[in-house]
Amino acid sequence: MQAYAELEARFRRMLLLRSVDDILHWDAAAVMPSGSAAARAEQLALLKVMEHELLADPAVAERLDEAEAEVDQLDDWQRANLREMRRLWVNGAAVPSDLVDAFSRACSLCERSWRRARPEGDFQVVAPLLEEVLRLVREVAAARIARPLGPDAPGNAYDALLDEHDPGMRSATLDPLFERLASWLPGLLERALEKQATSPAPLALRGPFPAEAQRRLGLRLMARVGFDESRGRLDVSAHPFCGGTPDDVRITTRYDEDDFATGLLGVLHESGHALYQRGLPEAWRYQPVGEPRGMGLHESQSLLIEMQVCRSRPFLEFAAPLIREAFGGSGEAFGADNLYARATRVERGFIRVDADEVTYPAHVILRYRLEKAMVAGDLSVRDLPGAWNEGMKALLGLDVPDHRRGCLQDIHWFDGAFGYFPSYTIGAVAAAQLFQAACQQVGDVEAGIALGDLAPLIAWLREHVHGQGSRLSTPEIIERATGRPLELGPYEAHLERRYAL
Amino acid sequence: MQAYAELEARFRRMLLLRSVDDILHWDAAAVMPSGSAAARAEQLALLKVMEHELLADPAVAERLDEAEAEVDQLDDWQRANLREMRRLWVNGAAVPSDLVDAFSRACSLCERSWRRARPEGDFQVVAPLLEEVLRLVREVAAARIARPLGPDAPGNAYDALLDEHDPGMRSATLDPLFERLASWLPGLLERALEKQATSPAPLALRGPFPAEAQRRLGLRLMARVGFDESRGRLDVSAHPFCGGTPDDVRITTRYDEDDFATGLLGVLHESGHALYQRGLPEAWRYQPVGEPRGMGLHESQSLLIEMQVCRSRPFLEFAAPLIREAFGGSGEAFGADNLYARATRVERGFIRVDADEVTYPAHVILRYRLEKAMVAGDLSVRDLPGAWNEGMKALLGLDVPDHRRGCLQDIHWFDGAFGYFPSYTIGAVAAAQLFQAACQQVGDVEAGIALGDLAPLIAWLREHVHGQGSRLSTPEIIERATGRPLELGPYEAHLERRYAL
Repeated sequence: MQAYAELEARFRRMLLLRSVDDILHWDAAAVMPSGSAAARAEQLALLKVMEHELLADPAVAERLDEAEAEVDQLDDWQRANLREMRRLWVNGAAVPSDLVDAFSRACSLCERSWRRARPEGDFQVVAPLLEEVLRLVREVAAARIARPLGPDAPGNAYDALLDEHDPGMRSATLDPLFERLASWLPGLLERALEKQATSPAPLALRGPFPAEAQRRLGLRLMARVGFDESRGRLDVSAHPFCGGTPDDVRITTRYDEDDFATGLLGVLHESGHALYQRGLPEAWRYQPVGEPRGMGLHESQSLLIEMQVCRSRPFLEFAAPLIREAFGGSGEAFGADNLYARATRVERGFIRVDADEVTYPAHVILRYRLEKAMVAGDLSVRDLPGAWNEGMKALLGLDVPDHRRGCLQDIHWFDGAFGYFPSYTIGAVAAAQLFQAACQQVGDVEAGIALGDLAPLIAWLREHVHGQGSRLSTPEIIERATGRPLELGPYEAHLERRYAL
Repeated sequence: MQAYAELEARFRRMLLLRSVDDILHWDAAAVMPSGSAAARAEQLALLKVMEHELLADPAVAERLDEAEAEVDQLDDWQRANLREMRRLWVNGAAVPSDLVDAFSRACSLCERSWRRARPEGDFQVVAPLLEEVLRLVREVAAARIARPLGPDAPGNAYDALLDEHDPGMRSATLDPLFERLASWLPGLLERALEKQATSPAPLALRGPFPAEAQRRLGLRLMARVGFDESRGRLDVSAHPFCGGTPDDVRITTRYDEDDFATGLLGVLHESGHALYQRGLPEAWRYQPVGEPRGMGLHESQSLLIEMQVCRSRPFLEFAAPLIREAFGGSGEAFGADNLYARATRVERGFIRVDADEVTYPAHVILRYRLEKAMVAGDLSVRDLPGAWNEGMKALLGLDVPDHRRGCLQDIHWFDGAFGYFPSYTIGAVAAAQLFQAACQQVGDVEAGIALGDLAPLIAWLREHVHGQGSRLSTPEIIERATGRPLELGPYEAHLERRYAL
């Protein structure tokens, strides 16, 4: 047990240091003065170096070997913790540090070039830099595969990238799910648009909606969905996110004084992430097994709150009087029917982040196919714009007018994030499946939502998802919680019910 | 040079880590959710441990010896940096870690007891805990003296404590200054009160003064006194302070909607601290020689801005229209004469933090005498209340009605801070001397103040004080800047002019 105990002490220090990092990141995005970025970069770089030194110390490899030899003496959670320590070590130490450096520099250069290229839609200028990023991404993936983590380790380069964001997730699982979705969605979209065309267009909501009133309403609804204000904050940042630590969860949003819905639904989306953070197992704070499982599961929690709960008619019926009160609104425009019609509006578009619930998966599937092909070496960067535009035509029937609204729209690839996009749709699918299971297993989940009382739902999520930390893989958590492997049924049924019936 | 270079790298890491600490402290005071204190305590404790490990590593002692043997190869700043490294090492490593632990625990217990004892004025309940703190303070001082820092090291226990807050400051310097002040002040106070009695009482300023309007005015005046908003923030906290880092200076205040003056002068006071922080030598960032020199000099900068500049009639004449504009004020009450009369009002009182410029030194001298006697073993904790009350009678002619308004009013001793109080008056005296020198050496300092333009003054302070970092001792910085050792003349002349002429 000595080796395991030493590892716990070391990883505690590493993850506590990372929690400091999390607060500094929030600070940089939400409150830091504009001129202090260079000094902040020095602080963050030091924390990263110190975290890496803790992990890369040769003593870690020795203690891991020793602890794994005595694994019988560990209980279930300790064993999972040891496995996650090994995972962090492999992910942190498998890639040679000069490759890490080269990759980090290439990403940084490419991302900067992308910021200039996007407004112009000039793909050519950024293409050589993206080629370099892709080359290094493939090297990183190869290094991970060369040093595998046990028998279930990812066997190909794309899976190695996927596994970093969603441990246990494999393209062999996603391929059939995404292909079925890709063939089913266009029909659903047609039916949704037809249904929508038979009703009158939703009424406009006349602003202005003062930022301060939006903030107060956000805080009020956050509290209703279970956000603990004594352990978290709501602030403003250019790009909304959920940051901070499990004991100090900090979410941000943006306020548009002409449209409160985007900001408000953003707050509720981030509140879903916040509930996950806050519900992580307290006994395993600052240990690898106490960390959130992965991006897909994280997104499932934000989408469960936003899409399954808050955009539902029962919740909007509860929320409508609060919205009217917040803005002094009245009449049909501020009624639950109109708010619901606005919250579930469907429209084909070029931009992923503006997409509605029905068209969103098409944007993700397009990127999934393309990045898998790029990582496999089947699609060159040069051919990316053409492939993108063909894909958009096939999936959403749209002709992409320029690269700004095409393959230059997202930062991810240009910043080195390959294997990340699927988590948005994994999250959406898992959210539907988890929500259905919660409703079936707990009688008063739906009744609670209509009253703005999410306590029964949150209790179920705490037990089956949040409180599990990283004890199991993403697929295992979903299967244990719902009794079924990740599947499309509940998701399709949800979209069908909301958009086509 | 190898040893010196290694030391630079190590101290850079240590002070960069401390700068992270500084941001987390600001966060805890200004924005942290109420329930997150325990998690924050873990983060801060880890940073402290890591800083201490960097300093206490046996390699440091070896490198210091090696670098000091090659001191001829270093330039002036490097030499001073090496000297400050040695100082940090002696202060950090001279005291055995079990004594540090015991002291820290005793302070923590005593401070908590003081929080309960103060409202009741119950000195007896906290006395045994303060005895323990005092016992350990004396042990800490003895440990410092036993491991002296060069030939000019402090030779007695009180000087060892003083030296921690103001390197180079000695009771042999302070004793004559404070004794002369103590005998001169009562007469000045009498004359000030007589002069005040001959004028009509200042007019009341009718509020409410909304917090947001106070904040905007504060930001506006901060900018006028030279605070760089792209490298700092103004926020609210229970106890106003200047925190953050030289590249990210964060000051806080409190707003009383019935009285804007306290909050506003607080903002300007903290802005003085902020200017010092911001003006520290950029080439020596994260090195010991780049740190602020000490508490007395820091306080001289806040008092220079608050007392010498902002409470002066020329500055208030500049500020009066801005104040009227901020609050929609008008008439005689908001005129410069009345604002000046209010900002320079004198009154005997029991409470240090509420004291005016004339009576403040009496509060400090009382504490200085008492803490010196306690540390020397000439005054027991049991006899403190009696000695306090006698001292107040002698210095300000007041009969202390209860210990809440007597020896229980300040946190300092109960939290282990002995040798700190003098810095308030060192600061006030040095502020007058530095300001006088600046006015004499630079023609347009006073003309600038009347126009709300402090640039000439700030430039002088940057060169002679801020930009000196810790290159020299506090007495040396004052002497080089003004051509004279720390002396009472300019301070007495200032008080005389403002209050008695």
